[in-house]
Amino acid sequence: MLPAYSPSAPAPPAAPSWLARYQAVRAQSQALCAPLLPEDTVVQPMIDVSPPKWHLAHTTWFWETFLLKEYAPGYQLFHPDYAFLFNSYYNSLGSRVNRADRGTLSRPPLADVLAYRAHVDAALATLLSAEAALPPAFYELLELGLQHEQQHQELLATDIKYILSTSPLAPAYIEENEESGMRNEELAGADNSSLSEASWLAVPGGIYRVGFQEEGFCFDNELAAHDVLVAHFELQNRLVTNADYLAFIDAGGYHDFRYWMGEGWDLAQAQGWEAPLYWVKRDDTWYRFTHHGLQPVALNAPVTHISFYEADAYANWAGARLPTEAEWETAARYFGATTRGGTWLESSLLDPQPLPADADPAACHQLLGDCWEWTYSAYHAYPGYARAAGALGEYNGKFMVNQLVLRGGSCATPENHIRISYRNFFHADKRWQFTGIRLARSFNS
Amino acid sequence: MLPAYSPSAPAPPAAPSWLARYQAVRAQSQALCAPLLPEDTVVQPMIDVSPPKWHLAHTTWFWETFLLKEYAPGYQLFHPDYAFLFNSYYNSLGSRVNRADRGTLSRPPLADVLAYRAHVDAALATLLSAEAALPPAFYELLELGLQHEQQHQELLATDIKYILSTSPLAPAYIEENEESGMRNEELAGADNSSLSEASWLAVPGGIYRVGFQEEGFCFDNELAAHDVLVAHFELQNRLVTNADYLAFIDAGGYHDFRYWMGEGWDLAQAQGWEAPLYWVKRDDTWYRFTHHGLQPVALNAPVTHISFYEADAYANWAGARLPTEAEWETAARYFGATTRGGTWLESSLLDPQPLPADADPAACHQLLGDCWEWTYSAYHAYPGYARAAGALGEYNGKFMVNQLVLRGGSCATPENHIRISYRNFFHADKRWQFTGIRLARSFNS
Amino acid sequence: MLPAYSPSAPAPPAAPSWLARYQAVRAQSQALCAPLLPEDTVVQPMIDVSPPKWHLAHTTWFWETFLLKEYAPGYQLFHPDYAFLFNSYYNSLGSRVNRADRGTLSRPPLADVLAYRAHVDAALATLLSAEAALPPAFYELLELGLQHEQQHQELLATDIKYILSTSPLAPAYIEENEESGMRNEELAGADNSSLSEASWLAVPGGIYRVGFQEEGFCFDNELAAHDVLVAHFELQNRLVTNADYLAFIDAGGYHDFRYWMGEGWDLAQAQGWEAPLYWVKRDDTWYRFTHHGLQPVALNAPVTHISFYEADAYANWAGARLPTEAEWETAARYFGATTRGGTWLESSLLDPQPLPADADPAACHQLLGDCWEWTYSAYHAYPGYARAAGALGEYNGKFMVNQLVLRGGSCATPENHIRISYRNFFHADKRWQFTGIRLARSFNS
Amino acid sequence: MLPAYSPSAPAPPAAPSWLARYQAVRAQSQALCAPLLPEDTVVQPMIDVSPPKWHLAHTTWFWETFLLKEYAPGYQLFHPDYAFLFNSYYNSLGSRVNRADRGTLSRPPLADVLAYRAHVDAALATLLSAEAALPPAFYELLELGLQHEQQHQELLATDIKYILSTSPLAPAYIEENEESGMRNEELAGADNSSLSEASWLAVPGGIYRVGFQEEGFCFDNELAAHDVLVAHFELQNRLVTNADYLAFIDAGGYHDFRYWMGEGWDLAQAQGWEAPLYWVKRDDTWYRFTHHGLQPVALNAPVTHISFYEADAYANWAGARLPTEAEWETAARYFGATTRGGTWLESSLLDPQPLPADADPAACHQLLGDCWEWTYSAYHAYPGYARAAGALGEYNGKFMVNQLVLRGGSCATPENHIRISYRNFFHADKRWQFTGIRLARSFNS
Repeated sequence: MLPAYSPSAPAPPAAPSWLARYQAVRAQSQALCAPLLPEDTVVQPMIDVSPPKWHLAHTTWFWETFLLKEYAPGYQLFHPDYAFLFNSYYNSLGSRVNRADRGTLSRPPLADVLAYRAHVDAALATLLSAEAALPPAFYELLELGLQHEQQHQELLATDIKYILSTSPLAPAYIEENEESGMRNEELAGADNSSLSEASWLAVPGGIYRVGFQEEGFCFDNELAAHDVLVAHFELQNRLVTNADYLAFIDAGGYHDFRYWMGEGWDLAQAQGWEAPLYWVKRDDTWYRFTHHGLQPVALNAPVTHISFYEADAYANWAGARLPTEAEWETAARYFGATTRGGTWLESSLLDPQPLPADADPAACHQLLGDCWEWTYSAYHAYPGYARAAGALGEYNGKFMVNQLVLRGGSCATPENHIRISYRNFFHADKRWQFTGIRLARSFNS
Repeated sequence: MLPAYSPSAPAPPAAPSWLARYQAVRAQSQALCAPLLPEDTVVQPMIDVSPPKWHLAHTTWFWETFLLKEYAPGYQLFHPDYAFLFNSYYNSLGSRVNRADRGTLSRPPLADVLAYRAHVDAALATLLSAEAALPPAFYELLELGLQHEQQHQELLATDIKYILSTSPLAPAYIEENEESGMRNEELAGADNSSLSEASWLAVPGGIYRVGFQEEGFCFDNELAAHDVLVAHFELQNRLVTNADYLAFIDAGGYHDFRYWMGEGWDLAQAQGWEAPLYWVKRDDTWYRFTHHGLQPVALNAPVTHISFYEADAYANWAGARLPTEAEWETAARYFGATTRGGTWLESSLLDPQPLPADADPAACHQLLGDCWEWTYSAYHAYPGYARAAGALGEYNGKFMVNQLVLRGGSCATPENHIRISYRNFFHADKRWQFTGIRLARSFNS
Repeated sequence: MLPAYSPSAPAPPAAPSWLARYQAVRAQSQALCAPLLPEDTVVQPMIDVSPPKWHLAHTTWFWETFLLKEYAPGYQLFHPDYAFLFNSYYNSLGSRVNRADRGTLSRPPLADVLAYRAHVDAALATLLSAEAALPPAFYELLELGLQHEQQHQELLATDIKYILSTSPLAPAYIEENEESGMRNEELAGADNSSLSEASWLAVPGGIYRVGFQEEGFCFDNELAAHDVLVAHFELQNRLVTNADYLAFIDAGGYHDFRYWMGEGWDLAQAQGWEAPLYWVKRDDTWYRFTHHGLQPVALNAPVTHISFYEADAYANWAGARLPTEAEWETAARYFGATTRGGTWLESSLLDPQPLPADADPAACHQLLGDCWEWTYSAYHAYPGYARAAGALGEYNGKFMVNQLVLRGGSCATPENHIRISYRNFFHADKRWQFTGIRLARSFNS
Repeated sequence: MLPAYSPSAPAPPAAPSWLARYQAVRAQSQALCAPLLPEDTVVQPMIDVSPPKWHLAHTTWFWETFLLKEYAPGYQLFHPDYAFLFNSYYNSLGSRVNRADRGTLSRPPLADVLAYRAHVDAALATLLSAEAALPPAFYELLELGLQHEQQHQELLATDIKYILSTSPLAPAYIEENEESGMRNEELAGADNSSLSEASWLAVPGGIYRVGFQEEGFCFDNELAAHDVLVAHFELQNRLVTNADYLAFIDAGGYHDFRYWMGEGWDLAQAQGWEAPLYWVKRDDTWYRFTHHGLQPVALNAPVTHISFYEADAYANWAGARLPTEAEWETAARYFGATTRGGTWLESSLLDPQPLPADADPAACHQLLGDCWEWTYSAYHAYPGYARAAGALGEYNGKFMVNQLVLRGGSCATPENHIRISYRNFFHADKRWQFTGIRLARSFNS
């Protein structure tokens, strides 16, 4: 991915400010792992999940490889084998551990990875504290490194959830808070008192501009901004809730192929899907595994951990459809979506939250935060997109086929990491991210 | 898929005319199998390929199931087990042989399948010859059945090619023609004398209407016609040739990950791709397996049997890109593409042909016929698309994810089967169809 | 495998006699394929099964490779690619089609394979009719070729059964005989009137000699004859019947892990085994697919098409065990087993037959013919065994691990192909051969 | 497996002595894990390897399940889910974690497993210290539990080696000993000064008794003792060394199918075997990964970490063969093999050691200890063997097919765990145990 600045971008902030941001982001990654035991940081229960230890080391390798090796005079590599161990997918940078084998490596242990982090952090601090002028390209990489590490924070949160979920002991990542008296049940949003009916909000057709058009940082895949023609459509004013989704389950939605894409149906049958990931039924009650342990399904919270196939089947069942990427972005701009009111990583709730009972039915809620919203748009390059030269050209560009775009961020996204133009992408079968459903419909449909 | 008529569609033709069309289409399917031995009609050397015997029976099952069972009074099923054997993918119509097992069934033999065809053809002839009025829905299904059988004719041609290719004997499907003196070498277009340089043709930006807007039949996936906003772009005036593609091979294109989508690169490495499907190198010369046996690569013929991954990598290497679906259709309408001059199934050449040496460089050639052209657009539903009720709702709708659109038809498509708005679709890795490359570029790229 | 003669072997028979034997064996292979359609000769519905066309060609390749190329002056290969196509597993003789891909090849068609046979048969006939003396090694290979072709006759019979079984049409290989008035039901032995109780026959302990000790041909794996110490044991006087085996099924034998080897249990669960291969239950009645079509299970016929795992589990359930290979051979010699009364390939019944109602309870029946009897002995080399030099060293020796010995021949074995010392071998999970169960027990168990 | 006492077995030792043994064995298991980090105790880099944490818990579950639940009044289960987590393969005892998933579970962490051990140890200590008489069956289970835990000590040692080997960091499990001045290089036996030539020792033919015939404990698979007829044969007086094996490698043994079993050859080709497991070549020198880190191959140490396929191919290449199980045991009894001089788990060397330079060439060395010796005998039940009732009937009996017997123990076996009649067994392809080669030959071969 290409760090990109809009033409009117201001000069990069002065070094102390960069250092403070760097240290805050780095501290956040480690804070996410603080509740873990060393054993939790090693395992890889499915191929999409990486061991937390690996995330901590890979983000560090990124700084070492792209910044320190290039810009820090006399920088000493922490260990010559770490590039092989912690390169994720950059063919430009040589061979690496197979993705499927990340969970077979007990060494280096967590302690060594933390020492690696300290080594790199010290070198970065020295570099950022120095008076010497660094070239603009350095600051672009610095910004990219921060954004990259924030992306791995979201993955850390969701990978940790998956790792803990595999144990029949269903351990809680977030302990109940004795001081505040908050119990995990409450943290998981189990208040089912106030189900709001969703309402439909109209967006008039027209030519709209999408893609990054603001100041500051964006990823290369948000460029170039361009015009799209959008027909009049309507969007629901909130995410689909667990109560909504239970109606689909109870209506036999998982057993009626008519609602499903063919590949989704085959997969759901082969794997025996009956509900979203993490849901289990005990004595006729649905529970779901959360960062707070196993909790009853909160009816008015947004449904999450569903694949595109499920989101699409639900929409078909509900007589609606998923929005396209262009529609989603247009709506977000039209309704003036902001991060306020959304649930973000910083809240430490790590669970999408119900809409307040008194939420304005005429406003469009939850566009940013809580759940990534599946769109019915393939993740393709925007017009005029070009891969960067060198290793960073592999950041985004080589994934631009066979995946779908998700928008809006989630309860595991750092709040200052999101933008309206932000494009996330996953394969249609993935369920371990905080993914949810926003319904759309055409005017006449 | 939904048989669909534009509002101004004329009344369906009278029965005799329908019968003549029916018989012509049915005869064409059998004519395609005439050069085969019974043994050739049984095997399934890869999962995408179906045995020719199966195609002959499945198309017959379609007529029996959707027309005769519904509209022919007193129709007797040919055999009660054939629905299990020859249903392709309709969940609505019960269980069926696994797709991967189609090549394990020697029975019923070809002779029985031909008897099945005769049985159904006789019943259809009786029905179509009767004086009794049939409802409009019947004629919609009749039209759909014809289109469906034509689709399987293209698959027959490409599946037969794959089947014959697996033998080290490299048998020719089309024998040399002693009367005309044509040798297979000539039939395969081996004249390399006149390589034309491709030129770029501009299409001005604007709002264009795409999708089916004419009279007559279209598939449901071509609807609804709708407006798209297309930026100014340029298209090459011909398909990429084997000579063009050899330059990519010789430049190491198969060994440089920078040009490739990540999933394409991994697949190409795992399977050791070095050239298009069917190409083999002997004594430093490239040959390719064709319906005319193993033939030298014809330099000025269009390259074919390439995956989307290869088409995309080639385009990246060439400093261009693939067109989007909207661009392709807009260009085809803008340049007034017709089927004239294209190579079609009816030619029996079964190989894309070189552009004549005197082709007009200012005209856009080969848009229809010769090779399906990969677009960089996912196969998604058009705005306003809705699946039909019943089994035919499975015809197109359930495939609308994870595939890419191809446009324009090929040398294995019946000429009267194609339209500018026709949408074909395959997964990005498929290579056994007559797929090719048309380059596009944005104005400023 | 090594063609081996005991020291006192007579001189090989004169040429005409060899020719007559050769022609009889070759004719038998083709006769087995006569009821097939060309389509039946192509498919490979599982990896163990080879297409009949392949068997016909592979046996011919054997004659061409080992005899004609070596001993027939000026012999012309029928086709240069056939060695690649029809070599089975001889690494010494170069690369070959993957075993799993045998069913993907439609070419050469059956007609070409039959022409191949005629070509080789003519060359052999010329060679055998010539006056010129041929060296002893030639006659050893000639004998081996005959034995090899007979082995493939058994495989032809069982592979054809499997091929026809995959069709839901359940076609009969052997048609009902109108002249004799025999119906398939009778041919399949459905007379259930006279179930004989099995009796136990004792064999005294002692030192016995096993392995080939007679005159004439044997395979290398039957050598060297050697002494074994066998403790006193008892053997049942007949094969286990379908009635016996149904009691095991009805007692829940397929659902009680205590009777099973661990690997057998896991396999049976994963594949959902509930009965022998080819059994299906309709309306509470068990049927089984046979060469005579789908027939009711004949209660007093020997159970067949069971894996070692099932044979062993049955024996455990019955409070007995399978005999060791040494016990089986010792018993066969002790009781003077002959081929008389057994069911063999020549009978064309292709189904193990019930013991006559008046069979002597004091005699040991069915030791030779009807069903191969699983022993509880791994297929290992005998003491003093040595692989032959050259390609034929691969005939038997490289399979001598991970398989189990079966003894006695079956209803698909040519009668003059069997010997008491004959060692057949299969993996423990195989079920498509005519395999059955003979129970043994130790004196005190 | 059945704990079995020979008829003349003495009364079980008094309680204090049992407790001391119990505590010593349990302490040994934990001592083996002491050098590990928590991270090392979690991973499962291949299916045969279990996480050390799992071994520590599974052995504890064995005590809890078979002894405490049955014999300790009022015993409280440590945790209700642990039976699901730590049952290995006992179908009798309910469902369990899939073997392949043992490495996906980070919880319970090592600390909880150690607490589990302490809980069970305390309960056992109470039970063994009590005055109350316990029935004989209890002591049989007690003995079995000790033997079982010792078996897992060997697996711990070999699994730990495999786990550490997967890291490119090649960490040493056993640190260099500063006090003694021993360096890892020496500990790994790199002294190559004194290669002894192997000599052949004769064993006269005759009837010998094999199987357990002594006093004390044996596993059920060593019973019943029985007579075997063994022909005159010869055995090499020592294990095959790395120097011997290098000659096989250098002669192209890994590239000549003639020496190999067919299945072994296919596997070796598919996996690219070029040397024993753990060997790597750097700058033309062979190194191997050991518990002491990566070390040069010690020429006069026994070759180890080879599959049966390699052992058999080596023997074929060397013009010899592997001994049968009966030959091995007969030789061990004939030569009076003892555990003296062998390398055992207690030495902490965890590597087979070279024969001393002055070893008596007329004596048979290394029969017990250093390396398990592959025999050419399938692991089948002895005559008269019967599975125990209940869960312990699954201990040995259900594995008695498709594996080969190994004899003599290894450098990872506790010295007091071995016997001449001890039967170990593995599949022919396994290489991660300390397996080695002893050559045999028949008199005339």
